[in-house]
Amino acid sequence: MGRALAAAALAAGHPTVVWNRTPDKAEALVAQGAMLAPTAADAVGGASVTIACVLNYGAVRASLAGLADPPEGTLVNLSSGHAGEARALASWAAQRGINYLDGAILTPAPTIGTGAATILYSGPQTLFHRSRPLLETFGGTSIYLGEDIGVASAYEMALLDLFAMSVGGLAHAFALAIAEGIEPAAFARLAKGIGALLPDLADRFADQLAAGRFPADVSSIASAGSAVAHVSDAAAARGIDTTPLRAIQRIIGRAAAAGYGGDSYARLAQFLAGTDHPGVSAESAAPEPSQSALRGAGPR
Amino acid sequence: MGRALAAAALAAGHPTVVWNRTPDKAEALVAQGAMLAPTAADAVGGASVTIACVLNYGAVRASLAGLADPPEGTLVNLSSGHAGEARALASWAAQRGINYLDGAILTPAPTIGTGAATILYSGPQTLFHRSRPLLETFGGTSIYLGEDIGVASAYEMALLDLFAMSVGGLAHAFALAIAEGIEPAAFARLAKGIGALLPDLADRFADQLAAGRFPADVSSIASAGSAVAHVSDAAAARGIDTTPLRAIQRIIGRAAAAGYGGDSYARLAQFLAGTDHPGVSAESAAPEPSQSALRGAGPR
Repeated sequence: MGRALAAAALAAGHPTVVWNRTPDKAEALVAQGAMLAPTAADAVGGASVTIACVLNYGAVRASLAGLADPPEGTLVNLSSGHAGEARALASWAAQRGINYLDGAILTPAPTIGTGAATILYSGPQTLFHRSRPLLETFGGTSIYLGEDIGVASAYEMALLDLFAMSVGGLAHAFALAIAEGIEPAAFARLAKGIGALLPDLADRFADQLAAGRFPADVSSIASAGSAVAHVSDAAAARGIDTTPLRAIQRIIGRAAAAGYGGDSYARLAQFLAGTDHPGVSAESAAPEPSQSALRGAGPR
Repeated sequence: MGRALAAAALAAGHPTVVWNRTPDKAEALVAQGAMLAPTAADAVGGASVTIACVLNYGAVRASLAGLADPPEGTLVNLSSGHAGEARALASWAAQRGINYLDGAILTPAPTIGTGAATILYSGPQTLFHRSRPLLETFGGTSIYLGEDIGVASAYEMALLDLFAMSVGGLAHAFALAIAEGIEPAAFARLAKGIGALLPDLADRFADQLAAGRFPADVSSIASAGSAVAHVSDAAAARGIDTTPLRAIQRIIGRAAAAGYGGDSYARLAQFLAGTDHPGVSAESAAPEPSQSALRGAGPR
């Protein structure tokens, strides 16, 4: 991902200094015109914007530990992590006089520099505007979510949650199909229809969670529980690991035991979040992202 | 669902006899012109086609246990269950001289009688053709998958697997978003993009599984494991139940330990199925469903 970001900046004519723990990995970028710095501190020193894209937030700190003076430029951290880590890094950066903007890349490396990229940002708005000419070279849709440094990571984790469960479901469903002797291509044709249901369901979840009312107009938590039980049994009959399905089944069982069996499935989100009302408290509520920025990002 | 099916048959002018364990539930259907039978045996006796749509396969047997003579008509069982249950019911029906076709409804009750319904069928083709005038009143797309009585249920369970995991993921992701103070509607706008990724991923899974080659051109099992670990930690930090994510994480860990960490995620389906080659044996391989029938069903 780091290489894709640097390549996009270079392609747009931005003078770019690169650093990697394994210098060999930067060879192709140097051929494209990048300068290779011997240490991260050297790379950051004279830069107006530094993009960090490493394994995790701990690696960001470790890479920057050798900085002698606070850099004048902006540090944009695009490494993966959760909101708490972004907030902790913000404290660490503030103590060292580092200007820090957080970001989260939602799309795979091949999308960087194309219209298909989607990247979220949060933190000081002045830093976002100052870094924008470089950030726009990464392509696609840049969404600024507000001053709270943790919001981009919060979105990233919740979206990655949906992705991990859906793609885990795809692997599990193909496994069951294969075990039943169904041709993968024939199964894919019908499986696509399931993905196509998700956008409408996401809107229904959002409407019901915002209203705090959960009419089971299509299907209830109890009937979902019975469906998951059927599927778990079918997978078990074929010797396929049922632990993800059984985990969902147990959550549904607890929600039903708490009296929500007749409610729609959206209630399960509130039940899992452990809140009576969505949005938690005013203090922790994220600012509403700008409509115009989000409009372009929906159907990706 | 049973009421929706009977209402669709009545609306299309088919003389319809209904039976329910709780006769009150049939009142609206009687007002629409249905005859109410005192027992299931009475309902089945003179019918050319009997539609069974009850809790499970056991309930089908229990309902029909009182039949004195084998009915001349066709029993179409649209109750949910897995392939093994359909095959067991087929033996039971054969011993009693009952003509049995199996089916699986993929769409919710409100779709029945509209273009949005999708129903799969498998079993003796002669029975499918004989029942077709009635089955077509259920609307939308009817897909005949072949003579093997278990195939419709096998598809149903694998599709329901994907649905259960995806919708479980939607609930879990909204829970994490809510816990982070993100507005449900703002989250839904970006969550839709995740659903939109699934159709392409389904095709990629199918291509790789058919070829038995799993190049990690977009992302590997190892990197998926690291992403799931990030999300699990984020959910745990907010006190949200992480059992479904941890279950996926453990499966990924086992696949990586088996040497598949550098392969694409599609390999996980083969790993879960416990097969070296998809499609299992020629004996159990399902017939390829007809292209023309499937074409209409893809994007639902």
